Amino acid sequence: MGDEYTAPASSAKPAQASGGKGVALRIDILTVLPEMFVGPFDVSILRRARDAGLVDIRVHDLRDWAHDRHRTTDDYAYGGGGGMVMKPEPVFEAVEALLDLPPTHASEPRRAPCPVLMMTPQGRRFDDAMARSLAAESRLVILCGHYEGFDERIREHLATHEVSVGDFVMTGGEIPAMVVTDAVARLRPGVVGLEGATQTDSFATGLLEHPHFTRPADFRGWTVPELLTGGNHGAVDRWRRQEALRRTLERRPDLLETARLDAEQRAWLDTWLAEASGAGDTMP
Amino acid sequence: MGDEYTAPASSAKPAQASGGKGVALRIDILTVLPEMFVGPFDVSILRRARDAGLVDIRVHDLRDWAHDRHRTTDDYAYGGGGGMVMKPEPVFEAVEALLDLPPTHASEPRRAPCPVLMMTPQGRRFDDAMARSLAAESRLVILCGHYEGFDERIREHLATHEVSVGDFVMTGGEIPAMVVTDAVARLRPGVVGLEGATQTDSFATGLLEHPHFTRPADFRGWTVPELLTGGNHGAVDRWRRQEALRRTLERRPDLLETARLDAEQRAWLDTWLAEASGAGDTMP
Repeated sequence: MGDEYTAPASSAKPAQASGGKGVALRIDILTVLPEMFVGPFDVSILRRARDAGLVDIRVHDLRDWAHDRHRTTDDYAYGGGGGMVMKPEPVFEAVEALLDLPPTHASEPRRAPCPVLMMTPQGRRFDDAMARSLAAESRLVILCGHYEGFDERIREHLATHEVSVGDFVMTGGEIPAMVVTDAVARLRPGVVGLEGATQTDSFATGLLEHPHFTRPADFRGWTVPELLTGGNHGAVDRWRRQEALRRTLERRPDLLETARLDAEQRAWLDTWLAEASGAGDTMP
Repeated sequence: MGDEYTAPASSAKPAQASGGKGVALRIDILTVLPEMFVGPFDVSILRRARDAGLVDIRVHDLRDWAHDRHRTTDDYAYGGGGGMVMKPEPVFEAVEALLDLPPTHASEPRRAPCPVLMMTPQGRRFDDAMARSLAAESRLVILCGHYEGFDERIREHLATHEVSVGDFVMTGGEIPAMVVTDAVARLRPGVVGLEGATQTDSFATGLLEHPHFTRPADFRGWTVPELLTGGNHGAVDRWRRQEALRRTLERRPDLLETARLDAEQRAWLDTWLAEASGAGDTMP
């Protein structure tokens, strides 16, 4: 509460994007620590995207939906153990208020008309494909957990996606929610400068990126590959496609199973693999 | 620059941890967007850990090490293409200043006495094991990239670890740096309440966590499992160990290869797998 993104649900009118780019993606984030979001969305690309009406990011204090004057959103776990668990009522009621839904009860289907993401290390791992799928929505709701996690009924009957940013544990779901918000928002049309700029990302082609060099050409004796300074654009392009393939083979061979390779890349790969297996044959 | 974490390297005296817990972990973050870090480390667990001297997080503006009055830290890519590349000089000089090292030149070995992490989607995936290994250090330096990425000489001759938080692309390395800082800091002794609290995390045991329930026992018709409200602690413990195993089998069977199972869990797993393969035999 008290940060500039927090807006009551009643004022929730989607911002119109300028320049004919259509309606903004609206992302509602529910958290008990809204202060954490001061800063991360307030500079650079996301700041400009928000100012241009391309994304509409709203951070809400879950405590606004608590039922008691202490604004309690967590409680002891049934069955004992030290940890606290996020209570179901404030989370259900907040999501229903933000999405203008009537309360759901047992035996009724989930009602959410858009993805309701629950950030948890137990979820499906967030990746480029999930980011692109979420970027095609017009609204997202993101639930940030704390303590031992969410009451199971939130997982079963409210969340539509359980999302993990990796096999590690954090102090809460806020930074993971920033990860998802940033990665999804940058895929919306117009957010990252040139149209199509996100089509050449790592992962979009299925390969890691080639090495990059900038001035000085000689830095403390480490020099830039001559080919890159020579002005032969065909040779530069060929080197980049080869290095992207080489780097992927060395670091992430798993990506090659689904990468889109051109005929020349396929031939390079076959040659390298044949060389490697030939070398294997002659090793003692 | 301009945020409260930024401190000149000359004042870089590691904070002493209180309560006999030893020296703080110091984390220096280099970024062109220090404003992004206002908020995320300023509340809750990390705020208290910093106040108690358990972690010493310093965010530095890379532009302070730029060479020109425009404070340039990026430049055009050799070989053409639209993207900008992070220049080597400011990054090398900043790391050398922070770690009090003389400049390294070609043919000299890397000098960094502590991990220098470069955040990049091309890196090794950050996970619980890496977090625990980094939490055992006394200092870390984290480099946040922007634009098309870092000049290759930073990767080859300065960074000691290339770290990715997943197979997706973000607007910059700042939020990934927050992920690493948070996940590592919380593993330092004393940061997360009780001693040993982080030993029962997801991943620490090798299994996902069991479901959690809190009050009300009946929420809109969805009820808490009776066993959890019955007061039989042995039965609750058994249910939790079984549900943790079941959830891991359903969602992340890959984790079972390295999970530490007790004899009872091993027997459950064998039974389930036999049932599943038996069911498979009788399916058409």
